[in-house]
This record gives sequence, structure tokens and C-alpha cells, in this order.
Amino acid sequence: MSGADLANLVNEAALLSARVNLPKVTMDMMEDAKDKIFLGPERRSRVVKDETKKLTAYHEAGHAIVGAALKYSDPVHKVTIIPRGRAGGLTFFLPEDDRDEVSKDWCLDTVTQALGGRVAEQLVLHRMGSGAQQDIQMASKLVRKMVMQWGMSEKLGPIAFGEREEQIFLGREIHQHTDYSERTAQEIDKEVKLIIDKMYERAKEILEEKIDVLHAMASALLERETLDAEEIKVLLEGGTLEPLDIAASSDETVAEEESVGDSKPSIRPEEFPRGIPPLADPDASA
Amino acid sequence: MSGADLANLVNEAALLSARVNLPKVTMDMMEDAKDKIFLGPERRSRVVKDETKKLTAYHEAGHAIVGAALKYSDPVHKVTIIPRGRAGGLTFFLPEDDRDEVSKDWCLDTVTQALGGRVAEQLVLHRMGSGAQQDIQMASKLVRKMVMQWGMSEKLGPIAFGEREEQIFLGREIHQHTDYSERTAQEIDKEVKLIIDKMYERAKEILEEKIDVLHAMASALLERETLDAEEIKVLLEGGTLEPLDIAASSDETVAEEESVGDSKPSIRPEEFPRGIPPLADPDASA
Amino acid sequence: MSGADLANLVNEAALLSARVNLPKVTMDMMEDAKDKIFLGPERRSRVVKDETKKLTAYHEAGHAIVGAALKYSDPVHKVTIIPRGRAGGLTFFLPEDDRDEVSKDWCLDTVTQALGGRVAEQLVLHRMGSGAQQDIQMASKLVRKMVMQWGMSEKLGPIAFGEREEQIFLGREIHQHTDYSERTAQEIDKEVKLIIDKMYERAKEILEEKIDVLHAMASALLERETLDAEEIKVLLEGGTLEPLDIAASSDETVAEEESVGDSKPSIRPEEFPRGIPPLADPDASA
Amino acid sequence: MSGADLANLVNEAALLSARVNLPKVTMDMMEDAKDKIFLGPERRSRVVKDETKKLTAYHEAGHAIVGAALKYSDPVHKVTIIPRGRAGGLTFFLPEDDRDEVSKDWCLDTVTQALGGRVAEQLVLHRMGSGAQQDIQMASKLVRKMVMQWGMSEKLGPIAFGEREEQIFLGREIHQHTDYSERTAQEIDKEVKLIIDKMYERAKEILEEKIDVLHAMASALLERETLDAEEIKVLLEGGTLEPLDIAASSDETVAEEESVGDSKPSIRPEEFPRGIPPLADPDASA
Amino acid sequence: MSGADLANLVNEAALLSARVNLPKVTMDMMEDAKDKIFLGPERRSRVVKDETKKLTAYHEAGHAIVGAALKYSDPVHKVTIIPRGRAGGLTFFLPEDDRDEVSKDWCLDTVTQALGGRVAEQLVLHRMGSGAQQDIQMASKLVRKMVMQWGMSEKLGPIAFGEREEQIFLGREIHQHTDYSERTAQEIDKEVKLIIDKMYERAKEILEEKIDVLHAMASALLERETLDAEEIKVLLEGGTLEPLDIAASSDETVAEEESVGDSKPSIRPEEFPRGIPPLADPDASA
Amino acid sequence: MSGADLANLVNEAALLSARVNLPKVTMDMMEDAKDKIFLGPERRSRVVKDETKKLTAYHEAGHAIVGAALKYSDPVHKVTIIPRGRAGGLTFFLPEDDRDEVSKDWCLDTVTQALGGRVAEQLVLHRMGSGAQQDIQMASKLVRKMVMQWGMSEKLGPIAFGEREEQIFLGREIHQHTDYSERTAQEIDKEVKLIIDKMYERAKEILEEKIDVLHAMASALLERETLDAEEIKVLLEGGTLEPLDIAASSDETVAEEESVGDSKPSIRPEEFPRGIPPLADPDASA
Repeated sequence: MSGADLANLVNEAALLSARVNLPKVTMDMMEDAKDKIFLGPERRSRVVKDETKKLTAYHEAGHAIVGAALKYSDPVHKVTIIPRGRAGGLTFFLPEDDRDEVSKDWCLDTVTQALGGRVAEQLVLHRMGSGAQQDIQMASKLVRKMVMQWGMSEKLGPIAFGEREEQIFLGREIHQHTDYSERTAQEIDKEVKLIIDKMYERAKEILEEKIDVLHAMASALLERETLDAEEIKVLLEGGTLEPLDIAASSDETVAEEESVGDSKPSIRPEEFPRGIPPLADPDASA
Repeated sequence: MSGADLANLVNEAALLSARVNLPKVTMDMMEDAKDKIFLGPERRSRVVKDETKKLTAYHEAGHAIVGAALKYSDPVHKVTIIPRGRAGGLTFFLPEDDRDEVSKDWCLDTVTQALGGRVAEQLVLHRMGSGAQQDIQMASKLVRKMVMQWGMSEKLGPIAFGEREEQIFLGREIHQHTDYSERTAQEIDKEVKLIIDKMYERAKEILEEKIDVLHAMASALLERETLDAEEIKVLLEGGTLEPLDIAASSDETVAEEESVGDSKPSIRPEEFPRGIPPLADPDASA
Repeated sequence: MSGADLANLVNEAALLSARVNLPKVTMDMMEDAKDKIFLGPERRSRVVKDETKKLTAYHEAGHAIVGAALKYSDPVHKVTIIPRGRAGGLTFFLPEDDRDEVSKDWCLDTVTQALGGRVAEQLVLHRMGSGAQQDIQMASKLVRKMVMQWGMSEKLGPIAFGEREEQIFLGREIHQHTDYSERTAQEIDKEVKLIIDKMYERAKEILEEKIDVLHAMASALLERETLDAEEIKVLLEGGTLEPLDIAASSDETVAEEESVGDSKPSIRPEEFPRGIPPLADPDASA
Repeated sequence: MSGADLANLVNEAALLSARVNLPKVTMDMMEDAKDKIFLGPERRSRVVKDETKKLTAYHEAGHAIVGAALKYSDPVHKVTIIPRGRAGGLTFFLPEDDRDEVSKDWCLDTVTQALGGRVAEQLVLHRMGSGAQQDIQMASKLVRKMVMQWGMSEKLGPIAFGEREEQIFLGREIHQHTDYSERTAQEIDKEVKLIIDKMYERAKEILEEKIDVLHAMASALLERETLDAEEIKVLLEGGTLEPLDIAASSDETVAEEESVGDSKPSIRPEEFPRGIPPLADPDASA
Repeated sequence: MSGADLANLVNEAALLSARVNLPKVTMDMMEDAKDKIFLGPERRSRVVKDETKKLTAYHEAGHAIVGAALKYSDPVHKVTIIPRGRAGGLTFFLPEDDRDEVSKDWCLDTVTQALGGRVAEQLVLHRMGSGAQQDIQMASKLVRKMVMQWGMSEKLGPIAFGEREEQIFLGREIHQHTDYSERTAQEIDKEVKLIIDKMYERAKEILEEKIDVLHAMASALLERETLDAEEIKVLLEGGTLEPLDIAASSDETVAEEESVGDSKPSIRPEEFPRGIPPLADPDASA
Repeated sequence: MSGADLANLVNEAALLSARVNLPKVTMDMMEDAKDKIFLGPERRSRVVKDETKKLTAYHEAGHAIVGAALKYSDPVHKVTIIPRGRAGGLTFFLPEDDRDEVSKDWCLDTVTQALGGRVAEQLVLHRMGSGAQQDIQMASKLVRKMVMQWGMSEKLGPIAFGEREEQIFLGREIHQHTDYSERTAQEIDKEVKLIIDKMYERAKEILEEKIDVLHAMASALLERETLDAEEIKVLLEGGTLEPLDIAASSDETVAEEESVGDSKPSIRPEEFPRGIPPLADPDASA
């Protein structure tokens, strides 16, 4: 996080505490402020069609189930179908430590998990949506990094392709320099496609096997909107969740009023939605 | 809509209300102002040759009929051959909800509908016009997005091609980075052509089957200039519209005088002319 | 025409009227001012070799005869071998209406007509001149638009190639984005060449058949310098023009003195020299 | 000539007249000033090795003899081995009229003439020098224009390749747009090479046939440094020039003193050194 | 080092001396300041998982052992698993003299050493990590320089590929100019891959042979965090290090307090972490 | 030399004369100032390892012997292993006259001479060093000019490839325009490689034949550091130099003190270190 990000964060939290007349900023508020800044505000008031909700529920459940089934993927922390920023829903993962680097195994599992949303949608609803664009972008970018920067492809070997030009004079111009031939570009494309295709198959196998959990989790999401780690665990083990208290549910207007100081445990700073946790970027110092 | 767009909109509406001496801005005026800003002013006074009118009538009827025949296409709301801005005529569609994403089925149907204008022109008038440029551009752009960003091609798979460079320093330079080989470029081209060609055939089949409706709707457009959802429905079901009241028609000069505060139901804000409704663009946040 | 163009036009016309001591600007002056601004001033005083005059006469007659022989080409309005701006001579066409779009047929006929000048030069004088550069550029550009923007090639289909990048930030950078593969580029080149070659043959066939009219019109141009629609029609129908009145001709010095307020009917605003009439450009609004 | 060029010219002439104490600027001074500005000052004082002089003499004689032997080449006006600006020597040609265009025949002859210098050097001195760089550049540029802009290659046809992008906004960026495929680029290269190679052979044939004139003209140049049209004509017809008056020759210091107001007939404004006379550039207006 | 770097260095050292209340800047402080500026501050306080420590230990031991086994590689000076800046650990080498150039042998050994970290990780932990990105980048860059700038590939020969454009006007634009064909680019890629693959094999052979030393050095690093040249030598010769004095170890808090004026011999200015010592860059003067 | 260069030169010379308390600037000082500005200051004080000295001695002797053996190469004037600027040593050549152009023969000999350093290194020390980078760059650039600008390749012919774009507006943008196809690029690469490879063989043959002179000159350089034209001549003819006077040698400190006003004959202005003498660049005026 940059200094500006932090300042932004503090201001946002102060604002939230002022709105609910609290004398000081609580940790929960910091959490909410962080989510709001990085993911956009929750959009609870937004009217979402049932069909869209169902779509989102299966998509997010896909991510969560595939992620949970993989050894090297970060643990699933929370799933929600409350729209936030541009996303229709989000699956939150908890990175294992303040990591500086990632392994090939983690990369492959993360790609598989990222494709899990699209796979679930297709498997159950026989539908392909443009909403997977960010998953696809993230997966493609990660696989390209594996092949082109991290030497994780046996075929291409431990070679860096496409070095960045150094900063010239006052940093006006930085170009990504293509320092390889068309033939190498073809081999890179082939390798990227091979990896993505394999991981897609992997995600499909996992969800085909766990199709019942997929239905159960999607249903639970439609009922509760958000599932925490505990609830997710129950579902993954084939259990069922208790039906929601209707009375509490009818209090929704009040709950929403207080959503700024939401008493439910918010995500911890270590959490991040599915994707690449911010790695140290060696390019920046070169 | 940006803030500047909204300010623009309000000013335009205020101007319109001043011109017709109304004490306040009505909703109709807002509608007219919106159309004027986004589509350009109506050009009723423009002298259009009969041949050009006929051309436009068949072109727009083509869009409307193909769009109406497809399951996933947005419903047709209005068709007009009154020139507006640069367009000779327009077909308005009503998106189903405030959608954030679209499905592959919607994409394919939208492409088919977009090609419907050109197909109608060729089928009846054995003519290809440059007026289809915007339809062709829109369809090509949408198909490229399907193949290159949304992973909707089985052949290319769920891979993102051509990632945008991140914004550098003060946003001076953003380049579309071609991160794939010539061979991949060829496969993308082939896939795009395949989809466009198939959808063109689909549009052709629909209009060949509904050739009578096409003639009827073109005639109705030449007589009435604009058809609303109700009138379109009648024609699609094989019905005919009542002949226009000549007296009303002879009042046209007066009607035009008042066109700024047009009493006919204007399009609703949700409407949009054929094409892609404004989707959330995940690139913007990356 | 932009506002600046219009202001320019009015000033130029005012200047002309001041020079001939007329109390007000006549329509003829407006015409002359328009031609002067868009085509450059007439260069009557320029000494042109007889050989060059002959060359220009055959070149312009070639445009006029080919244009007149084609069904969809705009009607020929005037031909002249008086140099204007950079051009050695000009053939003026009259577009049929205030058109917003053009048909494939019009495009093909216009390309044929544009190549008529070069064909005439080669047919009679067995010579290829660099003066055809603008004709060749215009024809190439039009055919590329047909193939790449207007979907008028059966082979390439209704696909747009080479979309323009959207305007970024304050419009600093607009790049023509090559969004197709080398293989597609080859197909486009092949298709463009095929169309140009066919139209060249067509122009040749027309002029070979009308070789007598070509000689007659070139002779008439050498004698009279300018032919109006009526005179052109007589020649196209195989007639001959009356010999010029020598007396009038000897008055040339005086006539030139008054050329600013030339009493001969000038071209109308709808006229345009051979080439593409200004079409609505859908790119501008995207 | 631009306004700045003209101002420059007048100032330079005024300076020259001041230096020789003449009350007014003579036409000769204007001529000298023009040559000085466009070709650089004469460099009589420069010490040139005899070997270099011989080299230059054969090189320039090659241009002159090949140029004179060709039907469509402009007539040779003057040859000199006095260094001027960067050039070791110069051959001046006189264009036939104030031409706006050139023919394919003129182009081919001009290319042949331009290669005549290199051919002479190789034929007699068995040497290839970098001094031919400008000839080669000019010839290559002209042949490329023939093939790519003027439609003068039968094989490529009357198509324009590589259109210039239009000026955007305030003229910040103009790019030469490559609008053709690699395959077309190969055909263009092949055609350019074919034409250059043929013209090189043509120049060689001419000089092999006129080898005696070549030796004679080179000798005359070494003796007199400059040959005018009359002297060139004598040599081309196989004649010899009278030996130079030694007395006059010994006056050289004085002559040089007055070289600013040189009494020898200077080149006329129509003259231009070998190369392309300034043609009207249709790109400038597009 | 630039002037700014030096100023930076002095200021940093002054700051350090002020913090520990020393009257003057000692050499040790200069060393620490230098490391801090170029490698980033030590991050002793950072919590690192045992698994990550083990990973780093094997990685760095890999570099050190491979480097020590090679004749032309610079001598290993220090190995540490204390995170510094972005790096998880570092291996320091001591260049032999103030060298201006390097030999092909040194290049090959340096590449082998750089790949040693990745090889060790794979050999023992069967894992590929993104932490090798900088090693891979450095090795790729060095091999490309060998092939493209230093003529060290028999196959490509003593030719420079990809000359830099000269600085134009005020240095606004410097482009790396690709002055070779796709076929040459393929040969360069092939040659680079061949060299990298061979050196990878070499590193693997070395570490397979010295697998016991690898385990011993990794263990020693986990215990002591940093190994100096003497300790490294003992391990390389198959010896073992004395167990650490627990008492000293428990003083760590105090030791850390004084880390700014660390009494342990710091690296000398000639030291540099693994990679290319700063060579004279002939491009800079061209 | 630009005006700024000259001013720089005079200031530097004045400074030198002030330092040695001489009343005026001598020619020797001007020479030293010139070398200092263009080649960097001598770095006598620099500690150079014996191995590096030996390397440099063989490298420079290689240049000198190959250069002296070739008919068209400029005469060798001085060889030195005193580091200057970035170079470890230098060989100075004396161009024959104030030349404006060069011949193909000169180019080929100069390329051979430039490769002589690398060849000597390999032949005797079986070593390839990065120090040959400038030689390789210069040779590659010269051969590319031969093939692409000067028409000196029989295969490519007298065609210019890669014309520079003209300066646009205020000189903001000048791009090297690639105006040829990939196939032509391959032919250029092949031709460049062929010429370089042949010249490398030539240099090798010369040095294999003169291996004794190579050893003798390297030894002399190690003893004396600098050899003048006379000493070089003696060695080339198989002679030996008198052993150095030890006394004089022991005065080195004093000599160095006076090195600013060095009494030994310095290089003349016409001298230039190995490479391309500054040729008139026709691009500059285009």
C-alpha cells in the first residue's frame, strides 16, 4: 500500500465512524474502509434479477470449491454474492504468510481456481458469461509470467522473454521490449494454451465430482448472500446449514443502516479476493 | 453518464423548455435532450430521396425482425427512419435489466441482429451500402471481445489476448500490447470470420422466412416513419396497421414546430439503439 | 464545412467583390471563392506547353467519358484543362443528392472513372504519368474502405479490419490499430488488387469502344479549355461543337481581367471534382 | 521555395554585393546566392588529392554522358568538379518546362543517369565509392515512388501503397502507415530491384559504347574543372576542346577573389543538379 | 556511482552515525550505508516462515556452491538468508579486480552460478519458485549480450545486432532499433536457449555431485543466517562448523540494536551480490 | 567539430597550460586537450593487472599488424596500452587525406583491421572478451552501410534500404523507416554475415602468418606502453627495439607530472583511433 492509499484509508474510516456517531474508528471500520477503497462500495441497494443472482452464486461457489480442493491454493475465507464495485460477487482467499514469492504449484492451483467460476457456470447453466473476463485475464497473465518471467515451463526453460526497457532520462518512456522471434512467440502461445487448457480440465473434474456441493453452496449463497469460512467448511464436508431466522432477515433495513459498522467479522487485512496476492516485483528496482 | 454529460443534458433540456415557453422541464424534454446529445438532433427538415427512404426502411426493418426472432436478443422497442445525427434511421432495443455482464448467447444474437440490416438490403434491393459500416464495426468488435477477452471461443479457449499496458506515470501512454504470435493472430481472425459468417447466414435464413413481414414493415415505415413496440408486434404477427389519418398528417408543419416537446411517448432511459449496452469495463480498474 | 472554412469563404468572396468594384457579393463570386479555397486559384496565366495541354486534355476526357458511360457514377458536369491549384485539369461531377452513404455499385463505377484518366493517357499517348497519383490514391483508398470497413468483399465478408483506437485522455494519441494477422493482410491486398485490376480493364474497354469520342473531346478541350454539361453531352452522342468565335477569343485579356466575377455559369455547391464526395464518417463519433 | 528561403536568398545576395562593393544586387549574384544556399558554398580553396579529382571527374562525366544519351532525360547544362557543399562535383540538368508531373520514361532515364556516376567509376577505376550514396538514394526513392505511388509497375498495378496518415489535431503526429502485407512488401522489393538492375545495365551499355567520350570528358574536367553545355556538346560529338590559355589560368587567384560576382554565365534558376526536380506533392494537400 | 549516489551514501552514513552517537562516520557505517542504498535495508525484524527460510537457504547455498566450483566465476565472499530489500537472501561475490571487460568463460560460469539457486531448489525441494526471476533475468540478459553484442557465439559470429539509435536533438527519444530479420531473431533465440540449457545442466551436475555440501551449507545457514568466506570454505571442503554459542545468540536483541555499527566484517566495496559487476558500457559514449 | 566542441577544446587547453604554469597554450597542449575531450583522460594512475595488460597488448597489436598488412587501410600511427576513457588501449590510424568518401576496398580493409584485436586475443590467449564490443559494433555498422546505403554488395545491388523519414515540423520526430520486406531483411543479414565472416578469416590468416611479429609487438607494448609509427615499422619488418633506459623509466613520476605538456610527439589532428573517420553524411542535408 502506498502512502496515499493509507491516507485514503484513514480518511474513509474516519468518515464512516462520523456517520454512525462513534467516538473512534474501530478495526471493523478500517476493514470496511479497506474493502470500499480496493473493491468499491457494497451495492446492497442494487436490484439484481434472480437469474443473475443464481448465476453469481454458481460462479462464486465454483471458485470456492475448486480452491478448497487444491493443495497449494490459498484457503477460502469468505464467499459473497453481494455486488461490490464492479464485481457481481467475490470469493476471498487468505494467503498463508506475507509471501515474497510463489511456487509453480501455487500458480497452477490458483489458475485452476480462477477458472472454477466459468466452469461452474457452464456445467450447471450451460452458459458462458462475459463476467469471467477478469478471471481469464488474471489466469492468462499469471501463466504468461510463469512461462516468460519465472522459467516454470520445461519447454521454454529458465529464460526471461520480453525484458522491460530501462527507464530513460526522466522516466518518460518505458516500453516492453519484444526481444524474441515470432517462432518463440508461437511456442510461448502454445505453452500458455496448454497450461490453461489442462487447468480448465482439472477444474471441471473437481466440480463434476463435487456437483452436489456446488448445488448446495449455490443454494446457501442465494439464501444467505455471504458464507464465512466455517459455513463453507460445513458445506464442503457435505453438511447442511441451519435455515435462517426469518425475524432477523426481516430486520434487513436496520441491518443495512448499520452496515458501515457491520458487527459480523469482516475480512482480515491478509485476505484478498481470488487472484494474485501482491508479489514483490523485481522489475521495479532493475 | 459522466457529470459533464449530465450537466449537458440538463442545460439542453432547459433550453428546449425555454423555446416552447414551458415553465418547467418535463420528462419528455429530458428524453429528447438525451437523444439529441447522444444520437444527434432529429433531422426531420432534411430532404431525403424516396430511394434512400426505401433503403433505410428495409435496413431498419431487417434489424427489427431479426432481433425480434432471436431468443436472447434484447426486445425491440421502436423503429424509425427519421434521420438522427449521422444515422439514416434507428432501431431501438430495450435491455432486460441493468446488466453487468452478457452471455455468449446474447452476443451471438446481437451480432445476428446487427447484420440484419445489411442482409435485408441485399435480399430485397440486391445492394450493399456503406451505411452498414457501424453495424459491421459493432459486430466485429463484439466478436473480437468474445474470442479475445471473454474466452467464448472453444478453439481459442479461456485465454485473454492483447492485454492493455498499465498506465505509466501520469497516464500519458497506454498501449494495446500485442502479446501473441502471428499464428495466434491468424487463428483469432479465422474464428472471428467463422462466427460472423455463421451469424450472417442465420440472419439471412430468418429474413428469407419472414420476407412478407419485411415488406410489410418497410412499407409501414415509409408511411409512418416511426413504429412503436405495439405496432411492431402487430406486423411481426402478420397483421396490418390501420391507414394513417390524412388530416393529422397534413398538420405536419405544426407538429414539427412542437417536436421539441413531442407528446408521443419518447424512449425510456433504459433504451439503447442497436449495439452493445454499456458494460462494466474491467480494464478501467486494472 | 467548418466554421473557419465558412469565414474564409466569405472573406475571400468579399475580397473578390472589392476588386471588381461591385457593391455586393454575388452568388458567382461565392462559387469562385469556394473553388479557390478548396481547389486553389485558377492558373490561367501559367504557360503550359502544348504537349502538356494535350496530355491533360486526354486525361480529363478519359475521366469524363468513362464516368458518363457508367450507370452508378455521378453525372459529369464540367471538364476543364485550365490548371487550378496543383491539378493540371479537372473533371467535375454532380452527386445525385445530399447522400450519407454509397452503394457497392457506386464505388466500383467511381473507381473505374478515376482510373479513366490514366487509361486514356496510355491508350492514346502510350505514356504513364505521375499526374495520376491522386486518382490512384483515391481509388486505392476507396477500394480499401470497401473491403476493410464496408464489408463489400464477398471473400473477406462483413468484418471491420483495422479499428481505430479510441481517443485517450485529451486526444493526444490516436493510432490506427492493426487488429488482424499477416495472412488476413495478404487476403486484403489480393482482394484490393483484384478489384482495381478489374475496374482498370473496364475503363479500358469503355475507352477502346469510344475512342472517337475520346479524340473529339480532347480536341474540343484543347480549343475551348472548358466544356460544360451540354457540350459534353453533344460530344458523347457523337456530335461536334461549333467552332469558337475568334473575336470573343481575342478578348481574352479583358475576360481574364474579369475572371473574378466570371459571368459563365460556375459550378454549383453540389459539384465536386472527381473522387469521393464527403461521406459521413462514423469513426468521428465513436 | 518558401518565404524563408526567399528572404534568405535576398540577404545572401545583398551580402555578396556588399562584399564586392557593387551598388546593387545583380542577377549573377542572385544565382550564386541560390547555389550557395541550396548546394552549399563552392569550396575552391579546398585541397583535393589528384586521385580524388580523377575519381570525381569520371563520376560526373558518367552522369553527363548517360544523361545526354537518353531521350527523356533532361538536357545536361553544366558539369563541374569544383567541390560545393558536401558534393565532390556536380552535373547540372535543365528541366524542359515548369513541369507538374513526370512520365515513366523520364523516371527510367533519370534513374539510369543517376547510376551513371557509379558505373563510370567501376568501369574505369574498378572502384565502388560511398560518394554514390546520394545517387543511390535518389534512384531508390524515385523507383519506389514509381511502384508505390504512381502505379508505373505493370506487376503491382495502379494501386497506392503506404498511404500517409492524415494530420491529427495540431499536426503533432504524422506516420507513414504500412497498409500492405509482407507478401506485397516482397513484391515491391522485387520490382524495385528489377528496375534498378535493368537501369544499371542500361547505363553500363551506354558508357561501354562511349568509353572514349568518357575518357575525353574526364580529362577535360581535370583540366578545366567546369564544362558548359557547349563544351559538353563538342565532347559528346567526339570533338576536342582547345587547350586552356595558361595566362588566364595563372590569374586564378584574382578570379577567385571575384568569384562572388563571377562573370561566367551562372546556372539559370531552372537548372537543378541531377535528381528529381521539385514535383508537386499531392500528399501535402490530402 | 553517480554524484547523486555518492551524496546519498554520505548522508545515509552520517545519519547512521548520529543514531548510534558516534563522533564520526566509520568505514563500517559506509559499508552498511552502501548496502542499504543499493540492496535495501536488512529486514531482520521480518517474520519468515521456517519453510521459506529453508527454501532460501537451499537457494543461496546453490549459488554459492556452484559459483565456488567454477574456475572463472568470481570468488564467493558471503552468503546470507537475512532478507534485504526485496531479496529473501543474498550471495556476495568478490570481483577479481576493477575490471573493464569480461571473458566468454566468465560469462558462462556466471550464468551457471546464477542458475544454481533454481537448480538447488528443484533438486532438494522439487519445487520451482518465482524467486528465481532475477537470476533468470540476469542470466538471460547476459547471454543475449554475449550473442548479440560481444560476438561470443560461434554461430552468429562477431556481429552486433540491434544497435541503439543515436540520441536525437535533446535526447528525447532513444529507441532500440531492431536491425535484423525474423530469421536472425530465431537463430539468436535458439543460440540463447542452447547456452542457457547447457549451463543449467552444468549447474545440476555440480550440485548432484556436491549434494552433501548443499545439505550442510543449507543447515549452517538456517542456524547462523550468514556465512563468511572462511565458513564457506570449511563447508566446501567437507568440514563442519562449530555449534553456535547459545549465549551470544540470546544477545540478539542487543546485537540488533547495534546493527548500524555492526562489528562483524561487512562486505568490502568491491563486493557485489551475484550478477554482473558494473561493466563499462560502450553504448554510453557512442 | 561543432562550435561547442571547439570552445570546449580551447578551455581545456587553457586549463592544462595554467596547471603547468606555461605562459601560453602550446600545440602539444591542444593535442592533449583534443584527446582528453574525445577519448577521455589518460588513466595512467589506474592499477591494471598484468593479465589485463597482456590482453590489451595482444588486442592492440592485432589491430596494428592487420591494419599495416592491408593495402587500403589507413596507416598505423601509434599504439598504446595506456587506458584512456573507457578503452583499455588504443591504436591510432592516420587517414590519407581530408576525405569525403571511402571506397569498398577501404571498407573491407577497415573491417578486417577492426576484427584484428579479437582475432589476436583468440589466437594467442584462446579467449573471447567483451572488450571487442566497440570493434564489433563499428565493423557491423560499416558493413551494414556498405550493403544498405552505399550499394557495395553485388547481391543487393545499388539500392538504398531503410531511408530516414524526413524531418517533420520542428524536428520532433525522426524515424528510421523500414521500407523493405522480411525477405530482403534476411538477404541483408546473410550478406552482412558473409562479409564479416570473410574479413574475420582474412584477419586470422594475416595474424597466423605474422605470429612472431604479434608476440614481439605485444612484448614491446608491455615494456613501453606506447609505440610510435617508427617503432611499429621496425617491429613489422621483423626488427627489435632497443631495451628501455631504466633511468628514464624510473623518472616516471616526474614524467607523469608533466604529462599535461608531454614533450613526446602527440597525435596530429588528422589522426583518429581505429574506426570510421568522420564521413560527410548525406542524410544530414536531405
